[in-house]
Amino acid sequence: MPATFDDVRAAAARVAPYVHRTPVFTSRSLDAWAGAQLFLKGEHLQRVGAFKYRGATNAVQSLTDNEARAGVAAHSSGNHAAALALAAATREVPAYVVMPHTAPQVKKDAVAGYGAQITYCENTPAAREGTLAEIVARTGATEIHPFDNDRIIAGAGTAALELMHDVEGLDVVIAPVGGGGLLSGTSLAVHGVHAGTRVFGAEPVLADDAARSLQTGERQPPLPPKTIADGLLTGLSDRTFAIIREHVEEIVTVDEDEIVAAMRMIWERTKQLIEPSAAVAVAAVHQHDFAGARVGVILSGGNVEVTSGP
Amino acid sequence: MPATFDDVRAAAARVAPYVHRTPVFTSRSLDAWAGAQLFLKGEHLQRVGAFKYRGATNAVQSLTDNEARAGVAAHSSGNHAAALALAAATREVPAYVVMPHTAPQVKKDAVAGYGAQITYCENTPAAREGTLAEIVARTGATEIHPFDNDRIIAGAGTAALELMHDVEGLDVVIAPVGGGGLLSGTSLAVHGVHAGTRVFGAEPVLADDAARSLQTGERQPPLPPKTIADGLLTGLSDRTFAIIREHVEEIVTVDEDEIVAAMRMIWERTKQLIEPSAAVAVAAVHQHDFAGARVGVILSGGNVEVTSGP
Repeated sequence: MPATFDDVRAAAARVAPYVHRTPVFTSRSLDAWAGAQLFLKGEHLQRVGAFKYRGATNAVQSLTDNEARAGVAAHSSGNHAAALALAAATREVPAYVVMPHTAPQVKKDAVAGYGAQITYCENTPAAREGTLAEIVARTGATEIHPFDNDRIIAGAGTAALELMHDVEGLDVVIAPVGGGGLLSGTSLAVHGVHAGTRVFGAEPVLADDAARSLQTGERQPPLPPKTIADGLLTGLSDRTFAIIREHVEEIVTVDEDEIVAAMRMIWERTKQLIEPSAAVAVAAVHQHDFAGARVGVILSGGNVEVTSGP
Repeated sequence: MPATFDDVRAAAARVAPYVHRTPVFTSRSLDAWAGAQLFLKGEHLQRVGAFKYRGATNAVQSLTDNEARAGVAAHSSGNHAAALALAAATREVPAYVVMPHTAPQVKKDAVAGYGAQITYCENTPAAREGTLAEIVARTGATEIHPFDNDRIIAGAGTAALELMHDVEGLDVVIAPVGGGGLLSGTSLAVHGVHAGTRVFGAEPVLADDAARSLQTGERQPPLPPKTIADGLLTGLSDRTFAIIREHVEEIVTVDEDEIVAAMRMIWERTKQLIEPSAAVAVAAVHQHDFAGARVGVILSGGNVEVTSGP
């Protein structure tokens, strides 16, 4: 049974005590630039700086007490690792995270800071999966995949559910797509509240496997990593693709210059520090002709390294 | 008659229809880092991205209809020019701004975008003042000095007035100091509401003329411009120094590394894009031993150029 709108609603109730109900940002000058009325759901202000905390919390809080005692496990070098670590710490259960040696020190420090037990491995899919399987076998921990997991999908959808409740009459909702956890959860939430709201995805041209999957009707493999939007490199799973095929009208692709321009526009006009993956959705609204429509945008996160410059 | 708390209260009523009542940010991890409970007044979310819009609005809205028809004038290459231009446009009166040729294009565009009439001049004090005097003589416009003006001071104080009303029991309020308009207005507001709250200033070591002025009891000239906090280069005026001497306990000085570290902490922990001048006040809290006190900080603005980095 794939995830449904009821799962999103149940997730919303389950995570409410733990997650921030993030604010919605608007800006007249952004609207003029984008050619649409934007309602920006600020998940960069979510705990750990990304929507990922919603799914991780839903997964951890859904475990039985027996399951929870053995802990949770994942391999990730990004936001999912930090989100899972904090969600586990909040329930006071162990989190086992497999990271490549090569992960940036700042990410290692963040995950360790939330109290996860980190196992380092070679930076290959086989090493990551083998190491994770060994840990799961040894500890009995529950593996929590970053997107190929119904509770992660339902948890991710709770951001759009809040947005649909906080802003009336949205014509369109758009979210970035990597593995598809956020976009599939978003589409379930949006159509559960209002079937007439159109749901779009947004993806870098340099990582357009989801766009090609939707166009061809067949799941396409991801491209070699090249985009600045490094949260969107992953390909869809069968689970997320099935939901996206049913609910998502189109995946808009944007080039790197458009991503950077959108990120700077958001920084400049809203003073909100969003990451490139979040900017992809804003760039897509700018590029697509939404002709003044009321467009909800999921700003997926704010984990970006920035420097001040002249 | 110098500006008083009554002027701040009158300014608050006058500007309320035009300015944003900005939010207050808190962060447990920032508190742990700073060694105090921080309440960050977010003037980077003010219109034109800085507290300057409050004073400019108070000045423009205080003009008689006759005065207003002739417009307002200032020389400025920074936030004051943009703030005055928008405040004048809001009242639909002319704004004349004198800027050096050498001002960054982005600042010229911002001021022009708000509809001001810009006159370019050589980048010397004599050229700026001469050009401004000529424009005032020709147009009858009212000169609005960026800080040596009671209405600017009273308007600047409205941010702290909101903060004092929104957060109970502040032990300390701290604001950055350049020309002293923000700090003098802040001190009037704070002591008008609660005489027992201590008021501090914050200044770069590389531009510590206000700290030396307060220590010596004599107004000291500004140093040659060197700090990243380029909003704080100006020296005090007699008007702002008189208020600061009466109300401000100490001006804490911080070095450039501390400013950059504080700016990055704010970016990372709150995802709010603040400018170096605002970070100076946060750095000062970190450096000074406030021993867990409840400290209000005026984040003066968010006009900073940033680039994404590795």
